[in-house]
Amino acid sequence: MSLRILATGGTFDKHYDEIAGKLSFADSHLPEVIRRARLTVPVELDICMLMDSLDMDDSHRQTILAACQASPEKAIVIIHGTDTMRETAEVLGAANLGKTIVFTGAMIPYEIANSDALFNLGFACAAAQLLPPGVHVAMNGKVFPWNDVQKNRTAGVFVNK
Amino acid sequence: MSLRILATGGTFDKHYDEIAGKLSFADSHLPEVIRRARLTVPVELDICMLMDSLDMDDSHRQTILAACQASPEKAIVIIHGTDTMRETAEVLGAANLGKTIVFTGAMIPYEIANSDALFNLGFACAAAQLLPPGVHVAMNGKVFPWNDVQKNRTAGVFVNK
Amino acid sequence: MSLRILATGGTFDKHYDEIAGKLSFADSHLPEVIRRARLTVPVELDICMLMDSLDMDDSHRQTILAACQASPEKAIVIIHGTDTMRETAEVLGAANLGKTIVFTGAMIPYEIANSDALFNLGFACAAAQLLPPGVHVAMNGKVFPWNDVQKNRTAGVFVNK
Amino acid sequence: MSLRILATGGTFDKHYDEIAGKLSFADSHLPEVIRRARLTVPVELDICMLMDSLDMDDSHRQTILAACQASPEKAIVIIHGTDTMRETAEVLGAANLGKTIVFTGAMIPYEIANSDALFNLGFACAAAQLLPPGVHVAMNGKVFPWNDVQKNRTAGVFVNK
Repeated sequence: MSLRILATGGTFDKHYDEIAGKLSFADSHLPEVIRRARLTVPVELDICMLMDSLDMDDSHRQTILAACQASPEKAIVIIHGTDTMRETAEVLGAANLGKTIVFTGAMIPYEIANSDALFNLGFACAAAQLLPPGVHVAMNGKVFPWNDVQKNRTAGVFVNK
Repeated sequence: MSLRILATGGTFDKHYDEIAGKLSFADSHLPEVIRRARLTVPVELDICMLMDSLDMDDSHRQTILAACQASPEKAIVIIHGTDTMRETAEVLGAANLGKTIVFTGAMIPYEIANSDALFNLGFACAAAQLLPPGVHVAMNGKVFPWNDVQKNRTAGVFVNK
Repeated sequence: MSLRILATGGTFDKHYDEIAGKLSFADSHLPEVIRRARLTVPVELDICMLMDSLDMDDSHRQTILAACQASPEKAIVIIHGTDTMRETAEVLGAANLGKTIVFTGAMIPYEIANSDALFNLGFACAAAQLLPPGVHVAMNGKVFPWNDVQKNRTAGVFVNK
Repeated sequence: MSLRILATGGTFDKHYDEIAGKLSFADSHLPEVIRRARLTVPVELDICMLMDSLDMDDSHRQTILAACQASPEKAIVIIHGTDTMRETAEVLGAANLGKTIVFTGAMIPYEIANSDALFNLGFACAAAQLLPPGVHVAMNGKVFPWNDVQKNRTAGVFVNK
């Protein structure tokens, strides 16, 4: 089985810009992260966009949908901001693509101490290989179906609706 | 679904002893690792032993087997040294416990730069929830059945027999 | 010789708030940083304030001045935001306290990958012990007198005026 | 003022070899460390040798002495294993080179969590610029003359004789 990892940005991939003094996006961390994971399954990395998910609109979601449709791999992990992960999952879930699509992200950027990014990516890479076709959200060590998930923003965790 | 994480040591949990100037075992990193993973599934941590898997003999494997038999959780992740992971998996596989047992470990200790420990634990936590009962090895982003896996020590990766 | 470390905040001590999704201040990292440095010289940590130096006004600078006046230690390291480090150094320089005061900070927060915080603190701790009384800025591996230093914000480095 | 950093190995520069499963030497971390320190003073890195200081004999110390004699820079930081740092400092101290030579090292390798390497390098870089000619050991946030220092191996700290 081969795997596609689709980067769209989000907290996972944010980078500290030392001149501006804030977190933004530069090169994706995913090439380094994938080497670090020492994967032997074939993996394709597609850096689709790098943006805060609060800034996404429907056109971005259509771009992500098109990237999943075009993917030759049947197992797809999407790295996405947590704030509108559910909304993008709904667009893909309704499209019924016949592929196993697993969304994940991070509460703390990969490059910041105590980040959950690497754990979440590992979790999602297993879920994408083991779950049946459909669209899923994998956060907090748990798998949620696309139509029964929401982010509790006060607690910073994903829960069922 | 609730999860049991059984620590047995291995490279994953090694710690640099600055007085002796070498890697050995002290407190397990797993309590910190589990907090960092922000799990919302119930998880029990059982620090069964902390040792190099090259030093394990059959009595240690019987202790691990007994810990799995006694586990009320049906999904178990075992953190284990990579060098004899296969041997312990064989003991548990032959015992037919009716639980989903997933072995994982690390090529680089959790506390050392570029470690695969956190990715592997995330991968194993998904696999333990999603695989059917049986004994599996989850390394390099791939799931192996207990009776069809070996470590290629030259390349430092797990492969089928 | 004993040393006082005076924390005022700045990039050095920023912390990622995973609920708000941005960098702000929580507990200072300095107790952990000082343990990590394995100092055997007596060191007093004074967490005077934790703020962005762009938000400081003269009242804050007077508070820092008073803290230096009250310090029983003659060697003082001040952790400060880089953006107005020069302005606070000028207030202390003009006051002529007869102590060795060394300002430092960081371009990347301590808790973010590739941070210069630990290097800069080490550099400043030596400078505070070895320089004569006066007020100095220690950044980029270089010591500047308080009245001949400025931050080049485009390049992100400190230079002479 | 320009600075020479002379690498000789030691705990500071050890690297985890994931195939052998132990700490040894590969490429020096110092090029990365120096970039991270954002130095604006001119700095020359000389990777003289990469070895455990317990394995050094007099021929190695003569090589280090020759490297210091040949150095056009008058300020030299030597990264050295802590176990025989004093012995090498004695060879250089007796040679009376008329340069400011500062030995430092680390109790925990640069690439392992909680390392003191970066702090110690920062401390030594200031000391090499600010101390008068002579040979010094800079560890634990303190400067020692070459002929009044020893490592307390039980406590893992440097003290006066």
